[in-house]
Amino acid sequence: MSKTLEYYFDFGSPAAYLAYTQLPALAADSGATALWRPMLLGGVFAATGNASPASVPAKGKYMFRDFARFAERYGVPFKFNPFFPINTLTLMRIATGLQLREDPRFADYCAVVFRAIWVDKQNMNDAPTVVGVLQASGLDAPALLALASEQTVKDQLKAATESAVARGVFGAPTFFVDDQMFWGQDRLDFVREALAK
Amino acid sequence: MSKTLEYYFDFGSPAAYLAYTQLPALAADSGATALWRPMLLGGVFAATGNASPASVPAKGKYMFRDFARFAERYGVPFKFNPFFPINTLTLMRIATGLQLREDPRFADYCAVVFRAIWVDKQNMNDAPTVVGVLQASGLDAPALLALASEQTVKDQLKAATESAVARGVFGAPTFFVDDQMFWGQDRLDFVREALAK
Repeated sequence: MSKTLEYYFDFGSPAAYLAYTQLPALAADSGATALWRPMLLGGVFAATGNASPASVPAKGKYMFRDFARFAERYGVPFKFNPFFPINTLTLMRIATGLQLREDPRFADYCAVVFRAIWVDKQNMNDAPTVVGVLQASGLDAPALLALASEQTVKDQLKAATESAVARGVFGAPTFFVDDQMFWGQDRLDFVREALAK
Repeated sequence: MSKTLEYYFDFGSPAAYLAYTQLPALAADSGATALWRPMLLGGVFAATGNASPASVPAKGKYMFRDFARFAERYGVPFKFNPFFPINTLTLMRIATGLQLREDPRFADYCAVVFRAIWVDKQNMNDAPTVVGVLQASGLDAPALLALASEQTVKDQLKAATESAVARGVFGAPTFFVDDQMFWGQDRLDFVREALAK
């Protein structure tokens, strides 16, 4: 029986981006099905009392060096985004809406947003920039933004975030293999072991 | 030329304990010289604004599961200490004093204290317990406690902690290989790579 790999993410997390770059290989190697779980990291922080490592200056400085080391190990592009932290509410609502509709553009959309923030250093806090990024990638920006303003979509992201917190999630990315939780893009080896069992 | 591996630690950190169990092999495999750097983690937290992961309940709960996974991977004993957090001021002063005197009991003392806290679940907040643990290990408790109350020793631990912070340290354990900093017992593979270069 194929296992399920749940991936809780928010586009604003550089660690979630790094994990995302490894997710396809991780699922393929283990024959697992990846389940993407959009959540609002800001909501998780508010509910748990956790905070971005960047809230401690010395830690924030180190973390970006640490992420760069992992990017080098993984062989993936990674740039510090000068507009960090990014308010991802609308971006995560769009992901939620696409997933709710089982829209096949979900994967493309996620790839475009992760790349815009963590490779192309775009200011995704800025609405016109978001529209420009989506349009340039052939995505229908007005339709996606309309999706983000639907009440069912807003409610779904809120519920998904609350559900993540109820499961024990306090940061991003977080993985679940069955009921085992793994936090961080630096726990992929443990995730791999859990999938192999 | 043999490289130097600097290990900043505080006995109260379970991650510092896990790293300590791997330190001899890490140094031996790479031919590096390990330099032990006692510091007061509470002082580091106060200076940097960082906090124990246990200050966020969901994170604290997860972290102990995470440490247990690493202990299993390393094949070393590890128990949750019910008296955590331990006030390590006196314990770290003794380590500092022994090191300052180039006392050969330094290594034994560190092993005894780490084991008392993270294997034997001793309440090392409690002075009579500390005396009992030291005596049971054949260490001269009164002499060690007298060392902890010497002004030069107190000053040295304070200076060492400030110096760690000045170098960018915000948590424990922290390693330096040349000027490269690595935080966490989960970065030993990166430390190993840096030592091999």
